[in-house]
Amino acid sequence: MPAYTHLQRAEPVLVAHYLLAYVEMFLRDSGRLADCRKRLNLCPLGSGAVAGATIALDRRAMATELGFSAPTANSIDATSDRDFVLELVNALAMIGLHLSRWAEEMILFSSEEFGFVHLPEAYSTGSSAMPQKKNPDLLELTRGKVARVIAAANSLMIVTKGLPLAYNKDLQETQEPLFDAVATISGLLLLASAWMKTAEFNYGVMREAAETGFMNAWAAATYLVHRGVPSALAHEQIGMAVQLCLEKGCGLDGLSLEELRALNSVFDKDFYACLQLDSVLAIHDVAGGTAPNRVRQAILQARQRIETIREGCHATA
Amino acid sequence: MPAYTHLQRAEPVLVAHYLLAYVEMFLRDSGRLADCRKRLNLCPLGSGAVAGATIALDRRAMATELGFSAPTANSIDATSDRDFVLELVNALAMIGLHLSRWAEEMILFSSEEFGFVHLPEAYSTGSSAMPQKKNPDLLELTRGKVARVIAAANSLMIVTKGLPLAYNKDLQETQEPLFDAVATISGLLLLASAWMKTAEFNYGVMREAAETGFMNAWAAATYLVHRGVPSALAHEQIGMAVQLCLEKGCGLDGLSLEELRALNSVFDKDFYACLQLDSVLAIHDVAGGTAPNRVRQAILQARQRIETIREGCHATA
Amino acid sequence: MPAYTHLQRAEPVLVAHYLLAYVEMFLRDSGRLADCRKRLNLCPLGSGAVAGATIALDRRAMATELGFSAPTANSIDATSDRDFVLELVNALAMIGLHLSRWAEEMILFSSEEFGFVHLPEAYSTGSSAMPQKKNPDLLELTRGKVARVIAAANSLMIVTKGLPLAYNKDLQETQEPLFDAVATISGLLLLASAWMKTAEFNYGVMREAAETGFMNAWAAATYLVHRGVPSALAHEQIGMAVQLCLEKGCGLDGLSLEELRALNSVFDKDFYACLQLDSVLAIHDVAGGTAPNRVRQAILQARQRIETIREGCHATA
Amino acid sequence: MPAYTHLQRAEPVLVAHYLLAYVEMFLRDSGRLADCRKRLNLCPLGSGAVAGATIALDRRAMATELGFSAPTANSIDATSDRDFVLELVNALAMIGLHLSRWAEEMILFSSEEFGFVHLPEAYSTGSSAMPQKKNPDLLELTRGKVARVIAAANSLMIVTKGLPLAYNKDLQETQEPLFDAVATISGLLLLASAWMKTAEFNYGVMREAAETGFMNAWAAATYLVHRGVPSALAHEQIGMAVQLCLEKGCGLDGLSLEELRALNSVFDKDFYACLQLDSVLAIHDVAGGTAPNRVRQAILQARQRIETIREGCHATA
Repeated sequence: MPAYTHLQRAEPVLVAHYLLAYVEMFLRDSGRLADCRKRLNLCPLGSGAVAGATIALDRRAMATELGFSAPTANSIDATSDRDFVLELVNALAMIGLHLSRWAEEMILFSSEEFGFVHLPEAYSTGSSAMPQKKNPDLLELTRGKVARVIAAANSLMIVTKGLPLAYNKDLQETQEPLFDAVATISGLLLLASAWMKTAEFNYGVMREAAETGFMNAWAAATYLVHRGVPSALAHEQIGMAVQLCLEKGCGLDGLSLEELRALNSVFDKDFYACLQLDSVLAIHDVAGGTAPNRVRQAILQARQRIETIREGCHATA
Repeated sequence: MPAYTHLQRAEPVLVAHYLLAYVEMFLRDSGRLADCRKRLNLCPLGSGAVAGATIALDRRAMATELGFSAPTANSIDATSDRDFVLELVNALAMIGLHLSRWAEEMILFSSEEFGFVHLPEAYSTGSSAMPQKKNPDLLELTRGKVARVIAAANSLMIVTKGLPLAYNKDLQETQEPLFDAVATISGLLLLASAWMKTAEFNYGVMREAAETGFMNAWAAATYLVHRGVPSALAHEQIGMAVQLCLEKGCGLDGLSLEELRALNSVFDKDFYACLQLDSVLAIHDVAGGTAPNRVRQAILQARQRIETIREGCHATA
Repeated sequence: MPAYTHLQRAEPVLVAHYLLAYVEMFLRDSGRLADCRKRLNLCPLGSGAVAGATIALDRRAMATELGFSAPTANSIDATSDRDFVLELVNALAMIGLHLSRWAEEMILFSSEEFGFVHLPEAYSTGSSAMPQKKNPDLLELTRGKVARVIAAANSLMIVTKGLPLAYNKDLQETQEPLFDAVATISGLLLLASAWMKTAEFNYGVMREAAETGFMNAWAAATYLVHRGVPSALAHEQIGMAVQLCLEKGCGLDGLSLEELRALNSVFDKDFYACLQLDSVLAIHDVAGGTAPNRVRQAILQARQRIETIREGCHATA
Repeated sequence: MPAYTHLQRAEPVLVAHYLLAYVEMFLRDSGRLADCRKRLNLCPLGSGAVAGATIALDRRAMATELGFSAPTANSIDATSDRDFVLELVNALAMIGLHLSRWAEEMILFSSEEFGFVHLPEAYSTGSSAMPQKKNPDLLELTRGKVARVIAAANSLMIVTKGLPLAYNKDLQETQEPLFDAVATISGLLLLASAWMKTAEFNYGVMREAAETGFMNAWAAATYLVHRGVPSALAHEQIGMAVQLCLEKGCGLDGLSLEELRALNSVFDKDFYACLQLDSVLAIHDVAGGTAPNRVRQAILQARQRIETIREGCHATA
């Protein structure tokens, strides 16, 4: 499929490579939630109204009994702090940003113009007025609902900013944004995952898009560089070749060897092979690149990282 | 000094206990920055435009050489992700919230009405019109400037929300909020620290405030509870005693034993001792409470935690 | 009462003058709502799905019949625009900001330290733990709930930003913030108004506060200016007089004529009259100033403006 | 061109009709700025520090002389109010939202997949790595920079929320967001206008897109309705016709009269005429609809409204 920059086709990539970008995002999200848990898993019980309880309490024992890792360290902080709400909602908002980017892309990919993805019936609606239409409701709602999570984070900062210590009733207004953000993101994650299992990628259209639009131009320039042409000159000469193609209405592989040699005499028959999709993918042969062997490795590593996280979750559950 | 809830005097606490609340906040901030560093310290070099570099690169060696802990794992994610900006600015905004609460309190405490803190000349200005005035400029600017850091976090979420992968020029707009947030919080932290070293607390006024306003009422109720009076009844009877004091224009220690015994016969001479400030502080004898021995412990532990962090910083510097 | 700048006592003002500041804020709010109504009172009916209805409709007649001032002018805009939601919620957020400033001041004024306002029982709660306490819950909730209205405005901007025309399901997420903002502000306005009718100002304490803290220093400097002393010099000499008072532990009226003449020979017996609260108020004799005759005028004018608005509301109701 | 809902092709519209949607948005923006000017064009001079000037001033004469419509009405409000900043920046943010929607659409329209718009060279850049690329930088920066204006509005609300009267130094932080928002939106408006003058629409591609995708399905259903078929049934039968077309790989005009009559016997030869683009446009013959005569009228009316605004601006300039 084409990878885009500036929403313009940039370079072809494997679909798996594209999807691994989202794996990275969600792995970071998972790390943030784990770090947040570490900080919020402290027990405030025994802090009294503000100065500490007046009954002899073994706060450490109580905390352990209740499943916390330790008691909070200062009674004023414990009764007025809402860091644990803020940090959690910030982490949820970042998950939301990733879901929103995914939704935006799936909306684009399922438009008539892109045609990369068939909208699953179960998560789409028709139009009451237009018999031909199918609308990506779930995706649009995902994109829309992320706004409320960002706004929840904003709301929490506004509520707590500038409050004197310790408890003020304003803090009651930290509860709704918290619960709403948790419910929204939990729901969206389930739905996004279900959507992806149902949606069908149109690999034919994606491959065709990946083979057009001169996305082998960089590979072509690399061909010249490997034959000793300075990078800037190679870039310029392939630019001229693209120009020629646009006039002739063909791709780079539609130029004859004569036409190519008029631009630079180092062009040879093997040039045509380097323009093929498989070759273009293969030259990105670097850790984190889209060369198929690298993507295979990346999938294995991602699986291991997910497994490690899963085990960690079971341990604290 | 009085500890406040709802900006009403609640219970007396040691000034050190009050300040330790801020130590907790900043220790959490420090932990968030360390966790953020862990996630952002990855090297994107070698990701090319979007599909990975086309030159044979040892990305792991490069990352190590440049001081990163590892290379990024996916070229599309590496060129389009701004989580590292967002997580950092979110963490800075939370530092800002703590600074803003501190500033709000110091503004209150330095008003004529509170009179707890003398404004340091070096960080205050006079009034062009009113010869008698001294204004807490630094504190107000601290409170004001935190708004721009919260807005920076908001701006970053808005910029990145819903962008398709990979790089889009919109992302250029992530730089100003990032640099502005770093500069603002770094500056405020230095200034807040310098301000605190210069400001003088008016301990006499603070103590006087801590001894008035019936903040020994809870201690008085606790006295009854320890003598077998059910909690709710003790609370009610002390409420009636407070009412009587308001009519007489005195404190709880201004009531005679007869007056007290009319409310409950268990009152005895030792009641007056339990109303003294030192006694009131001492009964909050629980981990994280304001009893002087607990506060002394808390200071020691905070010093150790700060030392550990400092060592960690040197190790990664 | 004292008027504050930087939360430091600045100059004495009439309580009515202080309250008129809020009248101005709410009058502007009222104007914004009226302007918003003008723009949103257009009827989208007949716009079809996006290109206009396909049935012959007299949209002007329909709009009039339904109480709108006109039909919308473009079918694409009519089905995708949410300006009317945004402008309304922005206007509500600004009402919220004014309510929040009011709540902040009433919280301060009802603290033990200020003592200007008695908290009305009906809108306050006691403490479960502390028998002596009364908490300004309504005020704190007002201040807290304004955050959700600001966040609603933010959320609406985030939802609509960058959506292609025309309708997208994301727009469903404009409804909750709208209805929540309307309900929140409507409720707060009723409650704030009821609170003010019940709360009692402690005029004695306010007057005493207005007479201390050297708030007649500007009036004193004005005395010198009226006798030909250049403004900067007058300011400086009164500054020295204040310093002398602080050493002596008295107010400006506690200085003898000799002490004053040592600073400037133009001081005379009439100086003491100019230091009195009534004189200090009276010299602010300018439109919008706190001189009693000006405040009386301002009240009359405010009443007329409110009456005009009320009539306008009845006309469109 | 196709009009989209849910980013799915919905109905064909005239390009002029599409552009008039933006005219409506910017006309509302213009109205908001005019209303804002009305409220902010008051002169605070003479309000002194907080209680009003102590010099005899004719504030009305001063205000008139300085080009304001009147003096402010209350000295406390005049020195602490920032409504004029907030209302202006809110209005600018809404202009920004409209610019951002426009930018989003032009980015989509200039992608290879849509192909509706040729990116003007003067406002685009090439890629350093990919010789074939042209990037819509101006559009992306427009979309990105609107985030900072939304954040400016947010920042201003946060700064002013909960400040006690009157002036507090926090208000210094209202200046940068104000000036930044004015500069950003002024710049973007000039650039967006210049971009539109230079960009070329690819009418051939737009027309072709408007003629495919079964966007005449509603017109087809309307054909049945006009012949007495109940609306729901007409909708269902055309849905079946579309299904048949998808199997045959043709448009609705590719079905034979026999095939159509198998669905409903009222179909006749004149059905094919109603499927043509011109007919489909013409049936939206309602005020604000895309029928060519209605669009011609709408253009005339928009010109008149713009002219009226222009005259109003000259009068107040």
